[in-house]
Amino acid sequence: MPENNKEKINMVTCTAPVNIAVIKYWGKRNEELILPINSSLSVTLHQDQLKTTTTIATSRSFQEDRIWLNGKEEDITHPRLQSCLREIRRLARKRRNDGEIGLDSASLSHKVHICSVNNFPTAAGLASSAAGFACLVYTLARVFGVEGELSGIARQGSGSACRSMYGGFVQWIMGKKDDGKDSLAQQVATETHWPELRILVLVVSLAERKPIGSTSGMQTSVQTSCLLQHRAESIVTGRMADMIEAVRKRDFTAFAELTMKDSNQFHATCLDTYPPIFYLSSVSQQVISLVHRYNRHYEETRVAYTFDAGPNAVIFILQQHVPEFVQLVQHFFPSDTNRGQFIKGLPVNSVSLSEDLKQAIGLEPMSKGISYIISTKVGPGPCVVEDSTLYLLGSDGFPKKTA
Amino acid sequence: MPENNKEKINMVTCTAPVNIAVIKYWGKRNEELILPINSSLSVTLHQDQLKTTTTIATSRSFQEDRIWLNGKEEDITHPRLQSCLREIRRLARKRRNDGEIGLDSASLSHKVHICSVNNFPTAAGLASSAAGFACLVYTLARVFGVEGELSGIARQGSGSACRSMYGGFVQWIMGKKDDGKDSLAQQVATETHWPELRILVLVVSLAERKPIGSTSGMQTSVQTSCLLQHRAESIVTGRMADMIEAVRKRDFTAFAELTMKDSNQFHATCLDTYPPIFYLSSVSQQVISLVHRYNRHYEETRVAYTFDAGPNAVIFILQQHVPEFVQLVQHFFPSDTNRGQFIKGLPVNSVSLSEDLKQAIGLEPMSKGISYIISTKVGPGPCVVEDSTLYLLGSDGFPKKTA
Repeated sequence: MPENNKEKINMVTCTAPVNIAVIKYWGKRNEELILPINSSLSVTLHQDQLKTTTTIATSRSFQEDRIWLNGKEEDITHPRLQSCLREIRRLARKRRNDGEIGLDSASLSHKVHICSVNNFPTAAGLASSAAGFACLVYTLARVFGVEGELSGIARQGSGSACRSMYGGFVQWIMGKKDDGKDSLAQQVATETHWPELRILVLVVSLAERKPIGSTSGMQTSVQTSCLLQHRAESIVTGRMADMIEAVRKRDFTAFAELTMKDSNQFHATCLDTYPPIFYLSSVSQQVISLVHRYNRHYEETRVAYTFDAGPNAVIFILQQHVPEFVQLVQHFFPSDTNRGQFIKGLPVNSVSLSEDLKQAIGLEPMSKGISYIISTKVGPGPCVVEDSTLYLLGSDGFPKKTA
Repeated sequence: MPENNKEKINMVTCTAPVNIAVIKYWGKRNEELILPINSSLSVTLHQDQLKTTTTIATSRSFQEDRIWLNGKEEDITHPRLQSCLREIRRLARKRRNDGEIGLDSASLSHKVHICSVNNFPTAAGLASSAAGFACLVYTLARVFGVEGELSGIARQGSGSACRSMYGGFVQWIMGKKDDGKDSLAQQVATETHWPELRILVLVVSLAERKPIGSTSGMQTSVQTSCLLQHRAESIVTGRMADMIEAVRKRDFTAFAELTMKDSNQFHATCLDTYPPIFYLSSVSQQVISLVHRYNRHYEETRVAYTFDAGPNAVIFILQQHVPEFVQLVQHFFPSDTNRGQFIKGLPVNSVSLSEDLKQAIGLEPMSKGISYIISTKVGPGPCVVEDSTLYLLGSDGFPKKTA
């Protein structure tokens, strides 16, 4: 082991959540600064089920900035990674020059080792980049003693990452300035605001085709879809206000309907893109049918779906309806895996379905359409991990063998 | 046989074509008069492949109006059928009162027997109502000696039927008047205008679910989709002008791209409908991918698709590219049926595909996704059939046994 490893290593570990948009972000007005063409609103998912953990170490002994993601070293020169590193270091320098922190100038020039893991498979297609960049920025800020507004930096890593900087219900205000200084996330309500709300992630079995990525997809949409332009200019502002009101009032019907409509409209603009983009698979469509038929059966909006740039459904539902709806999902997407494997996360009671209900739904079951369900709820924003046994980097500043 | 069957029977037989919209009609501003929220433009398909034949007989001896469709007696009191009968009789009465025709007042009060058949399976989902109502109105007009503008009456049977009143390329001008008098079809170019243009109908194997019908689907869209409203108000007018120009110039690239974009936008507004409507199946999506990859391979827009309220694809392509594209369809949608059964209509030469091309497309073949292809071209409008052996009603005014 080289001698300079004996140098002091400064190390911080944090976790950050995944978020799911209920008013969708699709399209940038500035690619480099990641400034969106419309505001968006999301729900932060609980980190007990879905989170990124990041450990960052700095030391005089480190030769260069390095990063390991999910056990594999990745290219640190990735432009968006560089944006976040550069912005945090700039803020740290500014704070030191302003005399706000006692960071010595040497520390600021130290190289970083970054190690990050998700507690869920990347293949699940769960917008891991939002949690990843939020965690990176949150952790870097602590390493370099930076405080205050950080969502503007997270945004430059991945647009939706800015919303993962807060718990509960979060809006990303698009802003007006060319430099993006006013394009920031803001908490609308905390994670304790609506305790009855539950979230189910229906992880769809891997599709035959890999759909187009969101970065390049939204670029094509901005260039070719006149419906997207209209949505951004004339529809989203009203929907943001309505959604914030629905959240504040805990009005499930209003929240659910607007969530579904906005998901559908986002996918409509994808279809209006040229060439068209399809993110909804036949399984996604069957989930949509199931939800509408379920709601129609009870003449009440009890369940809502939303879909991002992939086929997985995210379901919003009040606690008391979870067991029945999960049972319905199991019935219409029969699986080989046992119940414990099929339903991950918060426990869900088993119930029996009435023949009446099954007949009212009247769909043809799709075997193995859904791999598993993650049962979760609204959760808090990024947190610092104190327990050093959970750090991903060892005392030598390199990934632990278990990482 | 009752004695009054010896009374003189007046009989006319006509045929009318199917049309496929390239600028789509979706949504009415007046349900009863069938007035659309936007103009539309269609291509009339050739009757050698797809047509409705209708025989109408009148006789003093007939006790009541009756109708037989595809061999089965149907309810004559259907409101849209009644609209067409009423309007034609009104016009006939007006002409007689104006002294324009020598029709005796007795004939005008005669009951009609209507018999109609399609030369293609209704299950193929090929907008048979457009050809059906166009044929009904065209034939009725001849029976009652009515001449001149008839598309406004056909429109009241089925909106898109007004476009089947002409051959070639036809626009349906939405009109402004509340009474719909200016909501009429008009020929943009005749059926001989673009002789190289070919049309392939890819009949998709019957889907699991029966999608929502267009009448009720468009009603829900008008009520719930803000994107549809924007499309009708701000997008279609420009597209109509562009499409008419592309047709007049025989500019295949412009025609093809606008056709695809408008099909996609129509389906986007269906997805923006609440609850959302899906007409495109996974087979439709694979056809869309195939077309875009094919065009990309040649760096030229050689093929266009359009989809109505169902999963069948209608393909536009210039004559010289037909053999290769058909072969590609056969390759990526392998079928058990022999070539003669798979390709109906205009003959298509067999060619072999280069490995290079197949690899460039790079799709996973979908077995039996497409039942068969109808190969056709642009065709003429409704025609009178002189040969009485082709009449669908016998000399007694009742369907022939073979009908």
